[in-house]
Amino acid sequence: MQKLTIQTNHKSEMIDITDIVKEAVIKSGITNGICNVFTPHTTTGIILFENVDPNLQRDYLGHLHKLVPSDGNYAHGKNAHAHIKSGIVGSSVTIPVEDAKPLFGDWQGVFYCEFDGPRERKIYIKVING
Amino acid sequence: MQKLTIQTNHKSEMIDITDIVKEAVIKSGITNGICNVFTPHTTTGIILFENVDPNLQRDYLGHLHKLVPSDGNYAHGKNAHAHIKSGIVGSSVTIPVEDAKPLFGDWQGVFYCEFDGPRERKIYIKVING
Amino acid sequence: MQKLTIQTNHKSEMIDITDIVKEAVIKSGITNGICNVFTPHTTTGIILFENVDPNLQRDYLGHLHKLVPSDGNYAHGKNAHAHIKSGIVGSSVTIPVEDAKPLFGDWQGVFYCEFDGPRERKIYIKVING
Repeated sequence: MQKLTIQTNHKSEMIDITDIVKEAVIKSGITNGICNVFTPHTTTGIILFENVDPNLQRDYLGHLHKLVPSDGNYAHGKNAHAHIKSGIVGSSVTIPVEDAKPLFGDWQGVFYCEFDGPRERKIYIKVING
Repeated sequence: MQKLTIQTNHKSEMIDITDIVKEAVIKSGITNGICNVFTPHTTTGIILFENVDPNLQRDYLGHLHKLVPSDGNYAHGKNAHAHIKSGIVGSSVTIPVEDAKPLFGDWQGVFYCEFDGPRERKIYIKVING
Repeated sequence: MQKLTIQTNHKSEMIDITDIVKEAVIKSGITNGICNVFTPHTTTGIILFENVDPNLQRDYLGHLHKLVPSDGNYAHGKNAHAHIKSGIVGSSVTIPVEDAKPLFGDWQGVFYCEFDGPRERKIYIKVING
């Protein structure tokens, strides 16, 4: 298990953690298997997403904000929208590993989604042999 | 593999199954690895979510209901909305395991989401060593 | 790791790949464990969903289209909606395996979701022993 820390810089943000995940796979010493990338926070998410055009990250966050507005009528306090987004987006992804590399597509990467930053956040990465 | 049963009590509901998952990890005898929590039903979901303020569960279910209203114009019968919610929320989560414990965050737990209850439902929990 | 190819036939489409996943589990030679089904493309998704009434697939795609319209105001080009859908639906599922079978429910199957077809697409299936 590798426990990492990242600093988010905005209220709402997508951070490309593809290289962090690639490095964690190499560090695990495992050549073939699967890799689980997990966030232990409840106002964040982890997804696989296009990592070439940054406009798409803006579109994704902007559209999520439309679907789950921060000023909605929620019973919980001000960051209810961030928890709801987290519950829709998901808190972990599992990726196949081959030749010591996570098998991303050519346009695909892993993103850490911050919905209530900026904060210091943890990421857990676990690679399973198989 | 552990196959468990829970009784849901409402049409729409989130049940905190964090303790059930913790117990299943201990029972598996596995100290380090990952844990997959899975629902075999198509009008339910499994998510990681905040488990301290119950208002947030109300906000989540309420907002999902806004996004996917039960009285929408669907080709399928009355519970189409429950299937659509299930497809958005997801049917399983995978969590890292360390020292015989699933590595939840301080405010984080696993929830069984019922979208078409009340019913008796199954949960499958599989822990993988690694 | 099994790397498969499927041809999608429409702009937006759900293809039932349940039999493909069952076969991949048998082919892996693994009797008990978990199975990860993964798409390396960023305008597709993989979900567990009801596979008996085809109306439900129409309802799901139709409702996703309502939530994320193709003609929205996006910074990226024409297929931004397809990337956003992919980010909401998710790019992989993990399923428990027992007796050389993925443990689907009676009404449940795995679907490959195409949001920007038709195209030739890849699926990666990795079964882990445990």
